[in-house]
Amino acid sequence: MTNSPAVVDFLDRLRLVTGSSTAGLHEPEFRGNESRYVTECIDSGYVSSVGEFVTRFEQSITQYVGSASTVAIVNGTAALHLALLAVGVRPGDEVLVPALSFVATANAVSHAGAIPHFVDVEEERWGIDASALREHIAAIGIVRDGNLYNRTTERPITAIIPMHTLGHPCAVADLTELADEFGLLMVEDAAESLGSTVGELYTGLFGRLGVFSFNGNKTITTGGGGAIVTKDEKLAGLVRHLSTTARISHPYEFDHDAVGYNYRMPNINAALGLAQMEQLPNLVDRQRKLFKRYNHVFSGGEFGEVHREPLGARSNYWLQALKLRSDRRANKSVLIESSVDAGIPVRPLWKPLNTLSPYISHPSSRTAVANDLYERVICLPSSASLTERDFPLEA
Amino acid sequence: MTNSPAVVDFLDRLRLVTGSSTAGLHEPEFRGNESRYVTECIDSGYVSSVGEFVTRFEQSITQYVGSASTVAIVNGTAALHLALLAVGVRPGDEVLVPALSFVATANAVSHAGAIPHFVDVEEERWGIDASALREHIAAIGIVRDGNLYNRTTERPITAIIPMHTLGHPCAVADLTELADEFGLLMVEDAAESLGSTVGELYTGLFGRLGVFSFNGNKTITTGGGGAIVTKDEKLAGLVRHLSTTARISHPYEFDHDAVGYNYRMPNINAALGLAQMEQLPNLVDRQRKLFKRYNHVFSGGEFGEVHREPLGARSNYWLQALKLRSDRRANKSVLIESSVDAGIPVRPLWKPLNTLSPYISHPSSRTAVANDLYERVICLPSSASLTERDFPLEA
Repeated sequence: MTNSPAVVDFLDRLRLVTGSSTAGLHEPEFRGNESRYVTECIDSGYVSSVGEFVTRFEQSITQYVGSASTVAIVNGTAALHLALLAVGVRPGDEVLVPALSFVATANAVSHAGAIPHFVDVEEERWGIDASALREHIAAIGIVRDGNLYNRTTERPITAIIPMHTLGHPCAVADLTELADEFGLLMVEDAAESLGSTVGELYTGLFGRLGVFSFNGNKTITTGGGGAIVTKDEKLAGLVRHLSTTARISHPYEFDHDAVGYNYRMPNINAALGLAQMEQLPNLVDRQRKLFKRYNHVFSGGEFGEVHREPLGARSNYWLQALKLRSDRRANKSVLIESSVDAGIPVRPLWKPLNTLSPYISHPSSRTAVANDLYERVICLPSSASLTERDFPLEA
Repeated sequence: MTNSPAVVDFLDRLRLVTGSSTAGLHEPEFRGNESRYVTECIDSGYVSSVGEFVTRFEQSITQYVGSASTVAIVNGTAALHLALLAVGVRPGDEVLVPALSFVATANAVSHAGAIPHFVDVEEERWGIDASALREHIAAIGIVRDGNLYNRTTERPITAIIPMHTLGHPCAVADLTELADEFGLLMVEDAAESLGSTVGELYTGLFGRLGVFSFNGNKTITTGGGGAIVTKDEKLAGLVRHLSTTARISHPYEFDHDAVGYNYRMPNINAALGLAQMEQLPNLVDRQRKLFKRYNHVFSGGEFGEVHREPLGARSNYWLQALKLRSDRRANKSVLIESSVDAGIPVRPLWKPLNTLSPYISHPSSRTAVANDLYERVICLPSSASLTERDFPLEA
């Protein structure tokens, strides 16, 4: 099949950035101390849940984001699950979740026995829309004794999980205000936004607890891994306790005072993570450079706009994305398929979570913006390695 | 404080085996391809949930134990949780669990929303006592429409988790018969018994699903990790699907047909595990040698008996243990404390799970044997490295 002129144009523009790269959508890069620290870890004999690399990795995150404490966790889904338990979400609660997110956001709520209640996102930042949510609450909610309930399901709505889509900070100030007003526990899904800031504060520190992911496709990776950060030292202690087997400290006796989760990150993964943390500022700089390149090649606006950080925030630009012009939405599938066929790994956004079979009957606001973004956005190749080649259009 | 003559005698015997070793209770050993494979893994760029080491590690386990399939999981607790979900345990079910086990056995049941129902173990093998369980069921159970219920709580009793204590196979034949008779789903907690056999069959293959742990203190380690094995290829497919994000296979679309768990083992941990699997036969041989040494130094029976494999079974002797003579039980604490003070890492068994605060009000049979064993057993230093030194009493 011959590609249409528009598709040829699209592929040519992408290739100005990707060249002949065969890298996947977002591949990690190991050019620092990764092998060295991991080998040191193996040589030390301590590869499991106890070891100095876990401590050093946690400290490096604490220092970088300025949290009071960091707890390294086996992955981002587990971290979000544990964070919800630690702040007090209970089985049967409803938790407000953006309809536009990776499925893990909703799954973690399900794992806690709670019910994801999907809400729409805003056009600018692609995170939860505070004013639309306010209207939705007015329509479906009722406040009794200071607690918010869903009038239809009669379940309490107890928490909200803002997510920073593709690394770009969402409307944390508005959402914090809304959460305070309705007594909602706020847990921040910063899985994609390690290194992004709003004003002077790093994402992850706006909620009572914030969660990072270090899956292989993230800005930095530990193989599989996650972390919970907080400004609340006492809450961090609870998280740490539940992330183990909740064993009562004793030189040798096995006694446990709670149902623990065995969610600690192993030392060998933390060794990889410590080396990756050393590369983080450089990796974020290069992702920001990559944005400029894509912005340059799509600058005419014929296809649409490359997604950019909101005013007042600095993004880690984890995943680059092009939002097609509204009249181009019918081209999304053919552009994606043609690119994938040509070896350029682009992707759509996630299907809105309220359309997935396990969640289709869950409570949801109308999600016009999430649906619109799903129909129009193409995620672009975002491996840091792409910045290593010369960019022909750069001065 | 001066040690009593009995304590001095006990320490002298231990030191005949441990010498001046400073190894912990059960430390791993990395003398094969561990660093090589892990470095290869990092160099490949694939450290996360996709990668050839996961496949190779799974295949090496499949080949070793003779399962139809193996699914590598992020840790043993997660593996047991997922196995329970996959066989069909539902929230509110009661699951029969040995009162004598590591707390993770009960926690995994709790994570599935089910209720651990504790039962006693037998004197010989320290695993669930089938005939005592039969009596317990007669006392508290009732069968309706072929399903077993707890008469007191009115909850269904749907599953049983035999555990192979310290690596020694429990009474799998009797328990399989009992499970079949009462329609109980059997999931095998083989966390400690990788490499142990009953007759020709490896532990892990007696239940519908069997679970291994590769925590740092196990016979082999992946840092943190676990696996689910089965003879049922179709059930393995379900486990594999739920262990990811339950994504429907598609070149780029993100659609998911179930609530997944993100429980896959990362490739970097599997790389370590593959190298460890190559060492497994040697490690088991050396643990069996270590048993002979302890058996030799305690052969007079003055303190008690070193725990040995049951007739008809071959044990991996994961953790060596001395069962004190009944009239010596009052010495347990002083023997443990004196050993720990002398730098010899011995441990008690786990406190019976039905005595832990999170489980104290859970259904339980009387657990006379579990209580007796807790009062009398001392777990002995069991690192494979202990066999490297010459044993003065060996011919």
